[in-house]
Amino acid sequence: MPGALPSPSLDQLFRTARTYNEWSDRPVEEHTVRELYDLFKWGPTSANSCPARFVWVRSAEGKAQLASLAAELNRPKILAAPLTVIIGHDLEFPETMPKLFPARGEMMRQMFRQPGVAEITAMRNGSLQGGYLIIAARALGLDCGPMSGFDNAGVDAAFFAGTHIKSNFICCLGYGKPNTPFPRNPRLSFDEAGRFA
Amino acid sequence: MPGALPSPSLDQLFRTARTYNEWSDRPVEEHTVRELYDLFKWGPTSANSCPARFVWVRSAEGKAQLASLAAELNRPKILAAPLTVIIGHDLEFPETMPKLFPARGEMMRQMFRQPGVAEITAMRNGSLQGGYLIIAARALGLDCGPMSGFDNAGVDAAFFAGTHIKSNFICCLGYGKPNTPFPRNPRLSFDEAGRFA
Repeated sequence: MPGALPSPSLDQLFRTARTYNEWSDRPVEEHTVRELYDLFKWGPTSANSCPARFVWVRSAEGKAQLASLAAELNRPKILAAPLTVIIGHDLEFPETMPKLFPARGEMMRQMFRQPGVAEITAMRNGSLQGGYLIIAARALGLDCGPMSGFDNAGVDAAFFAGTHIKSNFICCLGYGKPNTPFPRNPRLSFDEAGRFA
Repeated sequence: MPGALPSPSLDQLFRTARTYNEWSDRPVEEHTVRELYDLFKWGPTSANSCPARFVWVRSAEGKAQLASLAAELNRPKILAAPLTVIIGHDLEFPETMPKLFPARGEMMRQMFRQPGVAEITAMRNGSLQGGYLIIAARALGLDCGPMSGFDNAGVDAAFFAGTHIKSNFICCLGYGKPNTPFPRNPRLSFDEAGRFA
């Protein structure tokens, strides 16, 4: 039975990890992106539905297009980052269930096809997968800069045309420039955020 | 600059971690729950909005009530687990912005108060926080059994009455009984789930 990870690892994942807006010159290599996907893909989703889809924006043209669709404050972050991933979710994900859940694929396909179920399932589980991506990136020594200030419909038209994929949020990836994050904001206490029952 | 965590740690977080439905007798102590919160609370959210709220269900009465509102297949899992956490999100979270984002609290409060913004922000970021909870639990040596098959409106009435908190998903926490998970389902390949741009 495994115990807790060593304290420096918990720091790297959560306690001293920070959101970065400025980046060192170190690139994010393609093999690192593939290693990242092959790590976070294992995170759990409803019936293994894995609804999230990803565009890994690294070209100058891609960055310029994405930046042009972002809130003004976010544009320089996207242009400066080695890579920015668009996290979306595919509303047609029920069609993948026979592949992703072989034991009961057709049953799950029909369940997710009920009115309204695909939308909420994709949003919930696509966001979970985005959370796994962020923590997995940190586990690999990368830094993250997640953002939701952009024109979702514009990004969908530019990057997901001809599909049923909807953008959720975006996340810069790279190696953060030391000492550039803002002072850390407070969090809610345990009792402010919840209770036992 | 930190590198990647050691391979066994990546296994524990993602690669060999599994969803459990059966649990060993080892309890989840209150200090462990508080340690878990104090770890995952640091995960990033939009403008540090931290919209997720948590009910940590550990009493016999609480488990029976939650189980009665769950899909039939999920009932025995809730009754057997040492603890099941309800992850919800507070649609009134904009009121916390002056506390959580002191530099621009009133501006962010008004921004999140625009029509429709609180709902999507709470669902996106509350789900992200749920993802952080799952991976942080694994980082502390716990196992998880997340589920979304339950009566959300019934859970809201039973556990969040008199608030604007809406349930999102639930997650059993404990120490999994070895060798009980189903065979692992496949994941989408890198190219099935995304592309470079």
